[in-house]
Amino acid sequence: MLSVLKVYNKYFSEDKELVGKLLPIIGFVPRRLHLFKLAFYHKSMNSEGPKNYNNERLEFLGDAILSSIVAEYLFKKYPNKDEGFLTKMRSKIVKRKTLNDIADRMGLDLILSEYSMGKMSNSMLGNALEAMVGALYIELGYEKAKNYFISNVLMKYLDVHELEEIDDNHKSRLLEWCQKNNHQLNFDLKSKFKHNKRDRFKVAVVLNGEEISHAEDYNKKSAEQHAALLAINKLKID
Amino acid sequence: MLSVLKVYNKYFSEDKELVGKLLPIIGFVPRRLHLFKLAFYHKSMNSEGPKNYNNERLEFLGDAILSSIVAEYLFKKYPNKDEGFLTKMRSKIVKRKTLNDIADRMGLDLILSEYSMGKMSNSMLGNALEAMVGALYIELGYEKAKNYFISNVLMKYLDVHELEEIDDNHKSRLLEWCQKNNHQLNFDLKSKFKHNKRDRFKVAVVLNGEEISHAEDYNKKSAEQHAALLAINKLKID
Repeated sequence: MLSVLKVYNKYFSEDKELVGKLLPIIGFVPRRLHLFKLAFYHKSMNSEGPKNYNNERLEFLGDAILSSIVAEYLFKKYPNKDEGFLTKMRSKIVKRKTLNDIADRMGLDLILSEYSMGKMSNSMLGNALEAMVGALYIELGYEKAKNYFISNVLMKYLDVHELEEIDDNHKSRLLEWCQKNNHQLNFDLKSKFKHNKRDRFKVAVVLNGEEISHAEDYNKKSAEQHAALLAINKLKID
Repeated sequence: MLSVLKVYNKYFSEDKELVGKLLPIIGFVPRRLHLFKLAFYHKSMNSEGPKNYNNERLEFLGDAILSSIVAEYLFKKYPNKDEGFLTKMRSKIVKRKTLNDIADRMGLDLILSEYSMGKMSNSMLGNALEAMVGALYIELGYEKAKNYFISNVLMKYLDVHELEEIDDNHKSRLLEWCQKNNHQLNFDLKSKFKHNKRDRFKVAVVLNGEEISHAEDYNKKSAEQHAALLAINKLKID
């Protein structure tokens, strides 16, 4: 459909350069160009602009839409899997690291660097991708935004079957790191008690004799995994 | 639109009674009656049926769709509020207690009790509502499911402006409970350390001299709130 607004945005708008960069990524000239521009504004970039002129609101919207799109995709792709599997798969797809990686491969870094004046961080990439999904939703509606995301992002940049295989095993990651760096690692059971009539376990990660994290759960393995993840974050293990 | 399937579902299906109960709630005869039936099947009800014949998968889908619908509703309703406000408001709306309450007022308990054989719990209500949103989405598509939910659920059963006023102040809730029950309450700062170059605070809730929960955050108030919430859950304060 011919649209004066699209022609204007492409050839005459002061943001026509942005259109040139967006075109190979989203495949069309957006009418609401201002939203797509906003999607790339991290709040750290905007010290003098109007309040809330950053991508956080769009990211809030896009994060929810993206989560729905992925939920439905998995719901249909795996008709015989239970809710636990679907939830796990979704969190592998929408987690920060995956989104940052996808955004990078989509080339969003090229647009982001334009506005970020050198202050770019990895998580800004994933945030911009979520905000762009928010903008796509407002521009195209749910069905079209969904189809775009599934064909041009999910199918293109993600190997869903590979994701099935990845086990988020924080304990073994931590163990590996400790072996590599000659640290002594222990998982100590600190206490076991009743909560809601169920056994609950408190486990601590002890590194070279010093407790560095702990977590509780209704099963010991989950408590260990959680405590290991906390330790990984604390130790900034990549 | 006349539909043979709808006529069949309403007058001849073995689940025509369900249709009679659904009609005043959703306002139409669903084509995919089996999905709406499934939405009311809690896993505890189905010991002999096929595996996964329960509402958990639909709940997974509906939870995501509902979250998107509410995100967009708030995004448009509050054009000048920041992401923090929107996130807070959404969690007030989609939290278990609110959904259970809405489902009850919608009359979903009448349908649920049919299938639950007396084993009904409050959280089964909210789950069934989420699963029903999943069924509505598959039946109607996003736009219509959204319009249904906003007009017939959100606007009818929720006072969004009242929600704005509710402050999830766990600390004062805990304090109140302690005063009422003559318990001595302290919030102890256990440690303050650097994490990601920022100050991080670890706070413990101490009840009558005994530590019952603790939490960490980048700001002391948030750590206290979080520790208070953990204590509230542990002490099963209503």
